[in-house]
Amino acid sequence: MKKISDSTIRRLSKYYRSLEQLIENSIDTVSSDQLAEMDGITSAQVRKDLSFFGTFGKRGLGYNTKALKEQIGDILGLNRKWRVAIVGAGNIGRALVNYAEFSKQGFNVCLIMDTDSEKVDEQIHHLTVKDAAKMKEHIKAEKIDIGIIAVPTWAAQNTAEELMDAGVKAILNFAPISIKAPKGIHVKNENTAIEIEALSYYLTNGSG
Amino acid sequence: MKKISDSTIRRLSKYYRSLEQLIENSIDTVSSDQLAEMDGITSAQVRKDLSFFGTFGKRGLGYNTKALKEQIGDILGLNRKWRVAIVGAGNIGRALVNYAEFSKQGFNVCLIMDTDSEKVDEQIHHLTVKDAAKMKEHIKAEKIDIGIIAVPTWAAQNTAEELMDAGVKAILNFAPISIKAPKGIHVKNENTAIEIEALSYYLTNGSG
Repeated sequence: MKKISDSTIRRLSKYYRSLEQLIENSIDTVSSDQLAEMDGITSAQVRKDLSFFGTFGKRGLGYNTKALKEQIGDILGLNRKWRVAIVGAGNIGRALVNYAEFSKQGFNVCLIMDTDSEKVDEQIHHLTVKDAAKMKEHIKAEKIDIGIIAVPTWAAQNTAEELMDAGVKAILNFAPISIKAPKGIHVKNENTAIEIEALSYYLTNGSG
Repeated sequence: MKKISDSTIRRLSKYYRSLEQLIENSIDTVSSDQLAEMDGITSAQVRKDLSFFGTFGKRGLGYNTKALKEQIGDILGLNRKWRVAIVGAGNIGRALVNYAEFSKQGFNVCLIMDTDSEKVDEQIHHLTVKDAAKMKEHIKAEKIDIGIIAVPTWAAQNTAEELMDAGVKAILNFAPISIKAPKGIHVKNENTAIEIEALSYYLTNGSG
């Protein structure tokens, strides 16, 4: 398979959601035009994105919604379960423990840790906060695939290194810094402030 | 000014943070190479991004960190205050009321609303939850610039329309659907599940 760009992967996630919506509404086929309209992009872009993975639809007939959703799900690895650990039981960590979109797409949050002794042993939804000082042990015991960093900025890089040291290969980082990681470790940075700053830019410059 | 891409704006936000870090560490000048390394991109990209706004640095001397931060702040509209309202007092809404990165960059959350009568009048940090049934009134009274949607998926488009109806021109949407809005309204979608799905893709396909 060709190397595909981050933006294509993001769009695949969006098509996946649009297809879910169509299936919920009992719609069996969809054209690239319709998918494009649902996601606010061009149909040429939709066809180009899907072409990376071979031909799905038939010209003029559109795509079968269920089959396309299955195939995109396979590509994105959503047709299996992933075990997720959160480090940091602050506001963001708490919100993520029970984040419906995660469980819906197969991301099971099965561990939350903190270094603060006042938070350790606290119950957050279905989880009891574990001591982050024993991170490696907990990560191994829970067979974690993906680690989420929800600690203060100053502790983020260190937390990333502890996660990697414990064998975690994929990290979603909520701290507002870029995490450094060796090749072979996948890091995505989620920074809500960056999205709101784009709005600030558009409000300031009056375009977009 | 030329129309600049969303990805350039995102990178400007990152440079802004890197500059903050440098200034905190009392570093007065920075080269495009150093900025590039901090953000994991090429120095050619850094120079290209900054060239959209004219010449900041002097060849061979690098950029003055404080001046560059000021200028990027002006471009992004971060050197002023923005008044922000959150609709939805669930997990995400609660986490955002007290999100340090927002207040640090001049985004003041001054209103949170919900339709649930059990949540109305509840105290969340410095705010009292207001009744979303009177959204227009609250938005006007608080002179809101930016609205944040943190409601369930089924209510998101409707909430966006109420915000726009109340005069809000910029919306940050946390619901996992694409909000439809007329030209002139700025919408950014924040979907944490999409970032974690990119990790799932890389774990599945073993690249990236």
